[in-house]
Amino acid sequence: MSYQAPVKDMLFCMKELAGLADVARLPGFEEAGEETAQAVLEECAKLNEGVVAPLNVEGDRNPSFWKDGQVTTTPGFKEAFRQFAEGGWQGLQHPTDFGGQGLPKTIGAACIEMINSANLSFALCPLLTDGAIEALLTAGTPEQQQTYIPRMISGEWTGTMNLTEPQAGSDLALVRTRAEPQPDGSYRIFGTKIFITYGEHDMAENIVHLVLARVNGAPEGVKGISLFIVPKFMVKPDGSLGDRNDVHCVSIEHKLGIKASPTAVLQFGDHGGAVGYLVGQENRGLEYMFIMMNAARYAVGIQGIAVAERAYQQAVAYAKERIQSRPVDGSMPGRAPIIHHPDVRRMLMTMRAYTEGCRAMAITAAAAYDAAHAHPDAEVRKQNQAFYEFMVPLVKGYSTEMSLEVTSLGVQVHGGMGFIEETGAAQHYRDSKILTIYEGTTAIQANDLVGRKTARDGGQTAKAIAGQIEATEAALARRDSVAARAMLKRLKAAREAFVQVVDFMVGQAKGNPNAAFAGSVPYLMLAGNLIAGWQLARALLVAEDKLAAGEDTAFMQAKIATARFYAEHILAKVPGQRDAIVEGADSVTALAPDAF
Amino acid sequence: MSYQAPVKDMLFCMKELAGLADVARLPGFEEAGEETAQAVLEECAKLNEGVVAPLNVEGDRNPSFWKDGQVTTTPGFKEAFRQFAEGGWQGLQHPTDFGGQGLPKTIGAACIEMINSANLSFALCPLLTDGAIEALLTAGTPEQQQTYIPRMISGEWTGTMNLTEPQAGSDLALVRTRAEPQPDGSYRIFGTKIFITYGEHDMAENIVHLVLARVNGAPEGVKGISLFIVPKFMVKPDGSLGDRNDVHCVSIEHKLGIKASPTAVLQFGDHGGAVGYLVGQENRGLEYMFIMMNAARYAVGIQGIAVAERAYQQAVAYAKERIQSRPVDGSMPGRAPIIHHPDVRRMLMTMRAYTEGCRAMAITAAAAYDAAHAHPDAEVRKQNQAFYEFMVPLVKGYSTEMSLEVTSLGVQVHGGMGFIEETGAAQHYRDSKILTIYEGTTAIQANDLVGRKTARDGGQTAKAIAGQIEATEAALARRDSVAARAMLKRLKAAREAFVQVVDFMVGQAKGNPNAAFAGSVPYLMLAGNLIAGWQLARALLVAEDKLAAGEDTAFMQAKIATARFYAEHILAKVPGQRDAIVEGADSVTALAPDAF
Repeated sequence: MSYQAPVKDMLFCMKELAGLADVARLPGFEEAGEETAQAVLEECAKLNEGVVAPLNVEGDRNPSFWKDGQVTTTPGFKEAFRQFAEGGWQGLQHPTDFGGQGLPKTIGAACIEMINSANLSFALCPLLTDGAIEALLTAGTPEQQQTYIPRMISGEWTGTMNLTEPQAGSDLALVRTRAEPQPDGSYRIFGTKIFITYGEHDMAENIVHLVLARVNGAPEGVKGISLFIVPKFMVKPDGSLGDRNDVHCVSIEHKLGIKASPTAVLQFGDHGGAVGYLVGQENRGLEYMFIMMNAARYAVGIQGIAVAERAYQQAVAYAKERIQSRPVDGSMPGRAPIIHHPDVRRMLMTMRAYTEGCRAMAITAAAAYDAAHAHPDAEVRKQNQAFYEFMVPLVKGYSTEMSLEVTSLGVQVHGGMGFIEETGAAQHYRDSKILTIYEGTTAIQANDLVGRKTARDGGQTAKAIAGQIEATEAALARRDSVAARAMLKRLKAAREAFVQVVDFMVGQAKGNPNAAFAGSVPYLMLAGNLIAGWQLARALLVAEDKLAAGEDTAFMQAKIATARFYAEHILAKVPGQRDAIVEGADSVTALAPDAF
Repeated sequence: MSYQAPVKDMLFCMKELAGLADVARLPGFEEAGEETAQAVLEECAKLNEGVVAPLNVEGDRNPSFWKDGQVTTTPGFKEAFRQFAEGGWQGLQHPTDFGGQGLPKTIGAACIEMINSANLSFALCPLLTDGAIEALLTAGTPEQQQTYIPRMISGEWTGTMNLTEPQAGSDLALVRTRAEPQPDGSYRIFGTKIFITYGEHDMAENIVHLVLARVNGAPEGVKGISLFIVPKFMVKPDGSLGDRNDVHCVSIEHKLGIKASPTAVLQFGDHGGAVGYLVGQENRGLEYMFIMMNAARYAVGIQGIAVAERAYQQAVAYAKERIQSRPVDGSMPGRAPIIHHPDVRRMLMTMRAYTEGCRAMAITAAAAYDAAHAHPDAEVRKQNQAFYEFMVPLVKGYSTEMSLEVTSLGVQVHGGMGFIEETGAAQHYRDSKILTIYEGTTAIQANDLVGRKTARDGGQTAKAIAGQIEATEAALARRDSVAARAMLKRLKAAREAFVQVVDFMVGQAKGNPNAAFAGSVPYLMLAGNLIAGWQLARALLVAEDKLAAGEDTAFMQAKIATARFYAEHILAKVPGQRDAIVEGADSVTALAPDAF
């Protein structure tokens, strides 16, 4: 099944919703205007449609495999990665000083969506490398940055994040991997890390592992964790590769999905100790890792959108082709392609509305990230930073949860054929299930949303967003179209429900944390429903104007129809979600653990 | 992961909700009282827990395989099937005249749940055989019944349903398999059938295929389809097996789940024609097949409950064992099993509430089936038949849709371990996905609910159910517990929403079918939410009484807590579902097919 990058919708989101023109006015992004965006997206589409996407099914059927400590990736991956690297795609959002392109996240987000639509398993390698680059940019010494970053940007080397251990998953305080200081200033690392994505592979010359470990005598818990660089091959002063370091892949996992992405168990120090280099200061490792993780969380959210888009395209193609039964409205005399049946349309519209809503949300968040980093005015930076931080758990949590529903509908549209692996729809269903788990489960995202993003500032950021939504409502109220009226009704009810839930969270988080956290994931889902819907409401306003001006009629009509569907079928869920959170907290924990 | 049959909850549903004592007063079921039920369930639990359940993982890792037309099932399946047959389980609900046990469906439903919890793939063989027996009981000649039914009940032979062809899935009018009459009164069958569950296997001596085909010159469409018996081996007059018939398995499918269940492509008549025997009258095949299919649809609904129960048990076990992070309420000084975290509890309660609600709904429906068949009063039979028929699409559609959510949560509770196939949680997620598809997709169930079950009688049956729910509301209103008040609030709102949707469906089905069928699946989900919740409301009333009487305190407290959770978190969705159906119909089909 082929993939066609939704370049037009991506550009619409950037230009009309995320304010690409404003982004291009930020210092450093002067080149990042509409023309650049279009050129980059078209080039990116070419690579991903032509080279990366065709390897997706192949990766599922012929996954990475482990033998004697070596991992061989799916045939074609190595060559595709070479093309990816040569095209400069790894450096898209990284500083030009290190060989990157220095483009804003507003544009980068769309490129990340494309590579993930093309091939989730393949895209994970660059995704993790991005995170490693980010961490070194933040906390590495100039020498470390010079040694590692240019070679990661060029694709000669790749990066990994080593957090999880068998006893330490969501709870990183339990990390046991230890680091022994050496007289030369380096460390020796000992321990076992699991679930290490691309922890071993054959697509690059070297792998730069970033590893959480405890220095001997460090405090217990998260305050005693440091971050280390542990290269697979030692790097000589001239930058050439030296001896093999003492980190070895002892196995890879047999997984439900993303089978081509090797998930490694790494053993550090079985032969005397793996050489590691401290990044930043001792005991501040978690802080640095969170920088990396926040970038990765946003990117995983994009993965949700990406797999949803791919599943949607495949379902549409099948629904247009598969002929079965007469339309119920008698509009066709004979049997029709199933896209003519209302329930198939409902499924496709649901898939489409979720995907477009989340894309609009993610790209808008990306623009806030860019402003938070590059805007000359400190106050503007601060506001954008707060908005972006509020959005990260939503982009990650909501877009991935919705991808489960969308990929499930994708199978359903195919009927019995969807259950046959050959068809390919089932792969998306299997692949997507990791997205709500890795880089922090949905519950971890929701805890972040409730605690750090809502309760900590007394709901201020959340209420500011509600205020912006009210402004959109006011604009809708000035329209008299059926679509605008439908959107206004649902958006207003949803925004009011959101504010009630925010008040509930602020009120309960300290005094009655069980009540707040019983509703944390429902709150995340409610907020995601609302904010993705809000972006589609903004899209609807733009589309009505463009339509009136006779611009790109078909696209604008489709955008309006999709926004209205979202309002009536997805935003309509919000008041019920509010009731469950605000009135249903007690029943979540009423049954005692030993009564299960 | 072991399985423990929820015998206690099953007996509670039978006795307190489905009126087992009344069932045991029906002619023919005099032995089917509480004691029998308990004894049967305990015996059934023993076989399924001890013999069938341990083969579930094995079946996934070592699926059925095809070689040279033969299918070899998973090691252990053949022996387990022998034990199943020898225990008399295939005949549980079938007439004693043919060697069955003649037990009511009220008891049988629980046994079917157990075998499916133990092993969905294994259970499909008896499930299809049940359907074949049902069809022959309805439409077979006495001779056909004598030839085939006793041997199917004894487990010597098994049965299949042959409906689907590559071009004829949901749309059976497109069936092309043809039947040529022979001078001896038999037919020769020619064609290809796909997706035939246990269409070929090594667990029994013979396979009785029931096949839809067109007799030469029959009318087009569904009115020209006849039903035939096509045995794998010819049966001699003395009942012994003769020559191999001309039906051959040319391949089996590579599927997302239920891998141990062979899904066959069957080729009829490649070597001169498969010998077939007409069942009933020519051109009435679909009618007979629907009898079989209705039994199978109900059973597939039970499969949804069964896989949900198994996923729930596995998630609870993991949540009690996996230690990670401190409880947010400070209730434990150190790290706790994750069941102490509110969001894990929310997930487990959701899984539990759906499963118990659907079980209560299904067993109550089974009791209506029994009364519809065995009650001496024709009017009572008629009412119960109408109720049962209304329930079939809900038991099938709603219980299977909820199983997707429950098995997904089951993976989620396991975090990263859930994505590793070794853990076993992912198997339930994969296995369950077929349930919303086979024996009629959820959309097909929903069409049935809207058309035949709601619009045809002008909403009469639906409103009668709403009336019964009102009676439950009145009983709740006489209680002053927090749980009863919470349930009353949500049940009343949900019932009112249901009635509005019923009126909408009755009003639109003819004049504006697109609007009705755009909301058909949401209506099915709404009705399922409501009716499963209603049964838990009834359970809550019983449990409060029993609790007051000091009976089985822990069980009754848990039932009340589960019912209240259901009300506050699942019933609370219903008004939003109503809005989407009643106000959102137009936006489902607003985007034209070629605009996708």
